[in-house]
Amino acid sequence: MQKNYQQKTLGILGGGQLGRMLIQSAINYNLEVHILDPDPNAPCKFLSNKFVNGDLKDYDAVYSFGKDCDVISIEIEHVNTEALFRLEKEGVKVFPQPHIIALIQDKRNQKQFYLDQGIPTAPFILTENKEEVLKQAAFLPAVNKLGKEGYDGRGVQLMRNAGDLEKAFDAPGLLEKLIDFDKELAVIVSRNETGEVKSFPSVECAFHPEHNLVEFLFSPANISDTVDAKARALAEEVIQKLDMVGLLAVELFLTKSGELLVNEIAPRPHNSGHHTIEANFTSQFEQHLRAVMGMPLGETGLRCPAAMVNLLGEDGFTGDAIVEGMDEAIKEQGVYLHLYGKKITKPFRKMGHVTLLAEDAGLLKEKADRIKELIKIKA
Amino acid sequence: MQKNYQQKTLGILGGGQLGRMLIQSAINYNLEVHILDPDPNAPCKFLSNKFVNGDLKDYDAVYSFGKDCDVISIEIEHVNTEALFRLEKEGVKVFPQPHIIALIQDKRNQKQFYLDQGIPTAPFILTENKEEVLKQAAFLPAVNKLGKEGYDGRGVQLMRNAGDLEKAFDAPGLLEKLIDFDKELAVIVSRNETGEVKSFPSVECAFHPEHNLVEFLFSPANISDTVDAKARALAEEVIQKLDMVGLLAVELFLTKSGELLVNEIAPRPHNSGHHTIEANFTSQFEQHLRAVMGMPLGETGLRCPAAMVNLLGEDGFTGDAIVEGMDEAIKEQGVYLHLYGKKITKPFRKMGHVTLLAEDAGLLKEKADRIKELIKIKA
Repeated sequence: MQKNYQQKTLGILGGGQLGRMLIQSAINYNLEVHILDPDPNAPCKFLSNKFVNGDLKDYDAVYSFGKDCDVISIEIEHVNTEALFRLEKEGVKVFPQPHIIALIQDKRNQKQFYLDQGIPTAPFILTENKEEVLKQAAFLPAVNKLGKEGYDGRGVQLMRNAGDLEKAFDAPGLLEKLIDFDKELAVIVSRNETGEVKSFPSVECAFHPEHNLVEFLFSPANISDTVDAKARALAEEVIQKLDMVGLLAVELFLTKSGELLVNEIAPRPHNSGHHTIEANFTSQFEQHLRAVMGMPLGETGLRCPAAMVNLLGEDGFTGDAIVEGMDEAIKEQGVYLHLYGKKITKPFRKMGHVTLLAEDAGLLKEKADRIKELIKIKA
Repeated sequence: MQKNYQQKTLGILGGGQLGRMLIQSAINYNLEVHILDPDPNAPCKFLSNKFVNGDLKDYDAVYSFGKDCDVISIEIEHVNTEALFRLEKEGVKVFPQPHIIALIQDKRNQKQFYLDQGIPTAPFILTENKEEVLKQAAFLPAVNKLGKEGYDGRGVQLMRNAGDLEKAFDAPGLLEKLIDFDKELAVIVSRNETGEVKSFPSVECAFHPEHNLVEFLFSPANISDTVDAKARALAEEVIQKLDMVGLLAVELFLTKSGELLVNEIAPRPHNSGHHTIEANFTSQFEQHLRAVMGMPLGETGLRCPAAMVNLLGEDGFTGDAIVEGMDEAIKEQGVYLHLYGKKITKPFRKMGHVTLLAEDAGLLKEKADRIKELIKIKA
């Protein structure tokens, strides 16, 4: 007899906050979840049926973890894909598929994929080392991106003029034309094995000026229905052209001329979808589980307007985390705190997030500013 | 320095579905949760920082479990209160307080408390044994209730006429006048140490004809605002007169003459509050945590109308649970499945529940009937 979801074991590579929120959803479906994470005190440690402490980039660690599972998925893309290819050959369902994880691990291949598939994206030049970047003064202003290992704002260098070229990465990367965009949008889209595809409404991201991390997020984005429909259609095109099974976050630039360009993609639950836990009929975490476990996808509509505020460790504080201002914040209706279970705070470390609901989207910015001022993660 | 929530350990007596949903909420606040349960495979087994397998009625098991915790709470009231009294003396916060758990463990004391406090309730006679019940033919129709250990419909015997008296319990219990009610309502109310009290809107319960378990629940209840306000005021009066800290479910009869009578109370999250996870601004589980951990209480308003359907094990099936009709059900917008992680199903065992949301409360009954027909728990 075919196994039903409750009889299948889901192995997740990574046991951080995304894994933690996936588990909160998996509980509703009795899914048996195994977690592999390099941190012996990872946020998922006490929440999984089986927690394995191991290196996500180590072939043996990933292979031996995965061979006991029916389905393998990820909450971070920096994992050993060779082991995943072998597991896939041996009949384990690996979603997203290893070749997609491999493609997305290297921003150079990602950009080449957009070009080959006719997916609109910012003009770019591939560079092998610092020397090659130094020759491209004429291409500035641009962003120099490291091909591999960039994450949470690392591996990205803004270059406005020739003087900035000195900051170039001396490793394979790319130079991408700096886009003078009107807004940064994100669309989360999912696809299951039967080919069913569903996208969430577009959201608007406000990045922290210095740290290139999403500071605020607003849903719905303040754009026309036409632009929203175009953005969602583009995200759906990307997941279909990748032939991917799972959840894909598509970050987009809306240029001042109204053009949509794909910036980066992540094949997993994403910071730009955290608000869906409270604000949408299906959360991105449940949708990810539905997609990889072979369930029908959930309806993605908004229940009400929402904002999301990332709780980053305060600059200048490192050590045992203390949350300030929490009581004051959670007294208010429609304020949802999510702490990630990280004992130690560091400057700008993602320690949690807060989702805010309001009947009137116009009230969200003020509420978001106020809550951000109120809650501080110190040590 | 005073410990903040993240530094406090919460011990919960009982690791069933209520403990499981409490943990889903506790994750958002980084609470360290310890669980004590007699079932080595309890639904909470893999979700707590520490899972202890032990008898909830055993003094030593409860005491040794509790002494490492800062706060102790319950998800079932049939626990050893002597150990809780000692833990309370030794400075552990025990919420609800042991004397309240002891009071509620015995339905005879519960009824006496209503009488002494002037809380409206159905007329009753305390009986010590079967012989005493047999003498009360004149008091029928009535319900014979066992004083202790009644749970999920057990320990309750309907007696319409003298012929039914033979079914009397031969143990301390009570005979309660059968109330010819218009509706059965429930109000969940919470209170924290500072004395802050907040009640949830009244809900309407539809019980299974034979098995005395909630089959459907509707929120809001189909009653006037006046009756809702009276019901909530009554629930708030009960928790205040108990001087209780925690969450209290108050089951009420609305008589055909419009009178409200307190039926039974439970000092913990309750089946009649499951819909609050998706339908209210704060869920009953988060509210329970807020109350016992000393946080401000959350706003209790409805986000939208909801119904709740209990998923009981199908009659005639015992063994490894299989969920039928799930795919069909979860395709629909506003259908939330909650499976409780119980491997074995038995006739009428609570295996899970489904919450249904609809913009229009009028559509909920049809949706609830349909979903109930669709999802079957078999073996």
